Amino acid sequence: MTLLANPKAIAANRRYLDRDLNRCFAPEDLNNPHLTGCEDLRAKEIVKILGDRDRPKVDFILDLHSTTSKMGLTIFPSTQHPFNLQLAAYLSQINPFVRVCFGERDSSRLRSLCPWGLAIEVGAISQSILDAQLFQTTEMLIYQILDYLEAYNLGNSLPVPPSLEIYHVTESIDYPRNAVGDLHAIVHPQLQGRDYQPLSPGDPMFLTWDETSIPYEGKSTVFPLFINEAAYYEKGIAMMLTHKKVLEISP
Amino acid sequence: MTLLANPKAIAANRRYLDRDLNRCFAPEDLNNPHLTGCEDLRAKEIVKILGDRDRPKVDFILDLHSTTSKMGLTIFPSTQHPFNLQLAAYLSQINPFVRVCFGERDSSRLRSLCPWGLAIEVGAISQSILDAQLFQTTEMLIYQILDYLEAYNLGNSLPVPPSLEIYHVTESIDYPRNAVGDLHAIVHPQLQGRDYQPLSPGDPMFLTWDETSIPYEGKSTVFPLFINEAAYYEKGIAMMLTHKKVLEISP
Repeated sequence: MTLLANPKAIAANRRYLDRDLNRCFAPEDLNNPHLTGCEDLRAKEIVKILGDRDRPKVDFILDLHSTTSKMGLTIFPSTQHPFNLQLAAYLSQINPFVRVCFGERDSSRLRSLCPWGLAIEVGAISQSILDAQLFQTTEMLIYQILDYLEAYNLGNSLPVPPSLEIYHVTESIDYPRNAVGDLHAIVHPQLQGRDYQPLSPGDPMFLTWDETSIPYEGKSTVFPLFINEAAYYEKGIAMMLTHKKVLEISP
Repeated sequence: MTLLANPKAIAANRRYLDRDLNRCFAPEDLNNPHLTGCEDLRAKEIVKILGDRDRPKVDFILDLHSTTSKMGLTIFPSTQHPFNLQLAAYLSQINPFVRVCFGERDSSRLRSLCPWGLAIEVGAISQSILDAQLFQTTEMLIYQILDYLEAYNLGNSLPVPPSLEIYHVTESIDYPRNAVGDLHAIVHPQLQGRDYQPLSPGDPMFLTWDETSIPYEGKSTVFPLFINEAAYYEKGIAMMLTHKKVLEISP
C-alpha cells in the first residue's frame, strides 16, 4: 500500500500547513480532541489506515523523506528489533551508499506506529524539487527492501552479514542564538555538507555574523549529520551528533 | 538603503504568501486597485519607497536572490545601459566567479523600476537555509559593487575592460507534462547541476517516469541555466536556454 502522507501540503507545495506531520503521532496528541490543525487531523486519519500501536493493521512501515543535508542514503530503523537489524545489515552489505542511523526513540514519529520498518532520508536536495539521480537511488533502495521482505515472506530469507556499523545520535546542537532567539551564527563553511565526516574537538562548527569561528567543544570525535537541514531551524537543531558503533547481528 | 522585500514571507519562512513578489511590478498591476494580495500590496508599498519608473527616488537597485539551480554567482543587469555594462564588465574582470546574463525585458520585476542596477542570483542553495560560503561570496560581490559606485560618485571611475562575455536568454523550456499539467518527466540526471555547460542537439534533457530519455532537439548548442529551480515549476520553466555573446563596452 502506498500512502501520500500529507496531500494538502503537497498541493500547497510546502512541508506542512500547520505543523510538522512527522511530530503529530504521540499517543497523547492522537487522543487529544482539541488538536484540530491540518496535520493533527491527518495524523488521526493515518492511524485509522495503518492501525494504532496496540492494534496495527500493517506489518512494516517504510517512511520516505528527503533532506537539505548531505545525508546520502540514510536509513533509520524504527526499532532495534532483530528483524530491522538484519534488514539494515543486508542493505548495508548489498548497497554501498546506505548508512544506518538510530536516533532517540520518539513517539511523535509516524514510524513509531509499528515496530518493524524504517525511514529513508535522502539528500542533499532542496525542498520542492525533484532530483533524478536521488530519485533513482531511492527507488533502487525501495526495491531492495521489498525484495528482502518478499524473500522473508516466502520463507527464503536473504543472507545477512554478522555485524553492522551504525551511527547513534547522542545529541542535538542548536544554532548559537541571541537573547530573542535569532541566529547569532551559521554553520561554518568548513562543516557545511560534511555530514558523516569526523568532527574533532577544536574543529570549526559555526561562524558568527562578525566572522568569528566557533569551534566544536566536545571531548571526543563525533560524526555530525542533518547539518543545516531546512526544516530543523524551527526545531532548534543545527545538526545532530553521532557516535559510530558496530552491532552484532543475531542470525 | 537596505530593504527586506517581503517581511511577511520571511516570517512565514516561505518565498511568498499569495504570489511571487518579483512578478508584481508591472505598471498595470501596480495601478490595479483590485489586486490586494499580500505581495500586490507590498509591491505598491515598495514603489512608494523606491519611486516609480517615471519618478525614481533611487539611482541604483541591487536586488538579491538565491536559487536552487547551480548558478554560482550570476548578475542580471537591469538594462543594457552603458553604465550597467561597464559595471558588469568591471565585476567580470575582478571576480572570476561572476557570470553576466540578460533575460527578456520584463516589467513585472522589481529591478525594472530603475534603469540602473542589477539582480544577483546565487546558488545552488535550498530555500530556507543559510550557506556560509555562498553568503560570504555574495557579500564580497556586494562590496565590490558598492566600491565601484563609490568611486564613480567621487569622479574616480574604476578601469573597465573593452569587452564582456554575456549569456543571453533566448527561450524557456517547460517540463514535459501530461494532459492535466502534471509532470511527465524530470530533468535528466546528466543535465542536473550543469547550468552554464554546453547542451548540444541530441544531449539528454529530461527523463520520463518510465525511464525514457528525452533529448534536446534544438539546432545549435546552447547554455542552459535555472535548471530545476524550485520556484519555476509553477511558472512552467524547467530551465532557460541561453546563447553566449561578446559585447563591446564603450569606455
